[in-house]
Amino acid sequence: MQFFQKEIQLKEYRRGFHLITSVIERELPELSKIKVGQLQVFIKHTSASLTVNENADPSVRTDFESHINVMVPENAPYYIHTYEGPDDMPAHIKASLMGCSVTLPVTNGKLNMGIWQGVYLCEHRDYGGSRKLVLTLFGS
Amino acid sequence: MQFFQKEIQLKEYRRGFHLITSVIERELPELSKIKVGQLQVFIKHTSASLTVNENADPSVRTDFESHINVMVPENAPYYIHTYEGPDDMPAHIKASLMGCSVTLPVTNGKLNMGIWQGVYLCEHRDYGGSRKLVLTLFGS
Amino acid sequence: MQFFQKEIQLKEYRRGFHLITSVIERELPELSKIKVGQLQVFIKHTSASLTVNENADPSVRTDFESHINVMVPENAPYYIHTYEGPDDMPAHIKASLMGCSVTLPVTNGKLNMGIWQGVYLCEHRDYGGSRKLVLTLFGS
Repeated sequence: MQFFQKEIQLKEYRRGFHLITSVIERELPELSKIKVGQLQVFIKHTSASLTVNENADPSVRTDFESHINVMVPENAPYYIHTYEGPDDMPAHIKASLMGCSVTLPVTNGKLNMGIWQGVYLCEHRDYGGSRKLVLTLFGS
Repeated sequence: MQFFQKEIQLKEYRRGFHLITSVIERELPELSKIKVGQLQVFIKHTSASLTVNENADPSVRTDFESHINVMVPENAPYYIHTYEGPDDMPAHIKASLMGCSVTLPVTNGKLNMGIWQGVYLCEHRDYGGSRKLVLTLFGS
Repeated sequence: MQFFQKEIQLKEYRRGFHLITSVIERELPELSKIKVGQLQVFIKHTSASLTVNENADPSVRTDFESHINVMVPENAPYYIHTYEGPDDMPAHIKASLMGCSVTLPVTNGKLNMGIWQGVYLCEHRDYGGSRKLVLTLFGS
């Protein structure tokens, strides 16, 4: 049984949905040592989030951004947490809808996702800055 | 500490929300060996998902399907990822709203959910085919 | 490698979003023994849920409640699961949107969240009663 943990800082991404699978894999040479296990990717922020979705066609990520802006609109008349601008409160809600972490099975030294799956960083702020992730890998 | 992993293929389910707790338990005789641990159920697809909800009344699953179709409608004018039909892009969004995995506590050889909880397969495509799950069980 | 599990019962919270990080930490003196690991908080109910979001300004929690009631309204004409009142079926849907568990990295004996992150109990029923959580902590 091995336990490995690492904190990484992503480059700044613009508002929207972004594939970051390869960034995560590059940071984790230790993956190759795990025959059976799990990797958790956790984001230390409340206005950006993580999800797993389609890794091929960029139009999927574009449509995610379009639709989530309809589901969680800016300037809803009932928002009271509006100090940091119209993208602030919607970003918090979107973050909880998507979730602050994804946990992926690890098998034979690799992430065992489906061939069409990838990890998305969901940046919900207009200028969210550079986001921090905690990677927790364990297994045998 | 034990680590056990298994990939299974579900039968084809129609579009909607389906209880699969007993399918998972049947595939995991190893559960009985774990006194304290966790089970992760991970789906290797981006247009079907997993969640935990009410295991008794089928009307709950029906209402889930009705409401998610309102929250994430087909044929939204802003979708550009439409090649595979009107159920394609909504399926991706629904999958991320529900999530690609559930993790359940294991206690004394059994899944430690509430008495009204069960695991749902959420099939978001009209014809999604047979879905693959990765079951990762570990504990002591 | 250590594995620790505990079931706790929360006090009754009113409908809405509530910070419970300190409640969880108080129940887990064992946290201090874990150098690298994870904590899962799992809720044994289908009409309340857990999420991680902003731990500072109470207006964020108020706006969460306002918006989720718009996203998942009561009395939608298509609901058929309505026996237990208008807050029943929306509570199930909200619970799956937020999720039944959160998993947090543990580092050097502490929850390793961002400084603005906290764990929310999301109580979706008008009178949900006292909710049970399973805390599963493990690591080395």
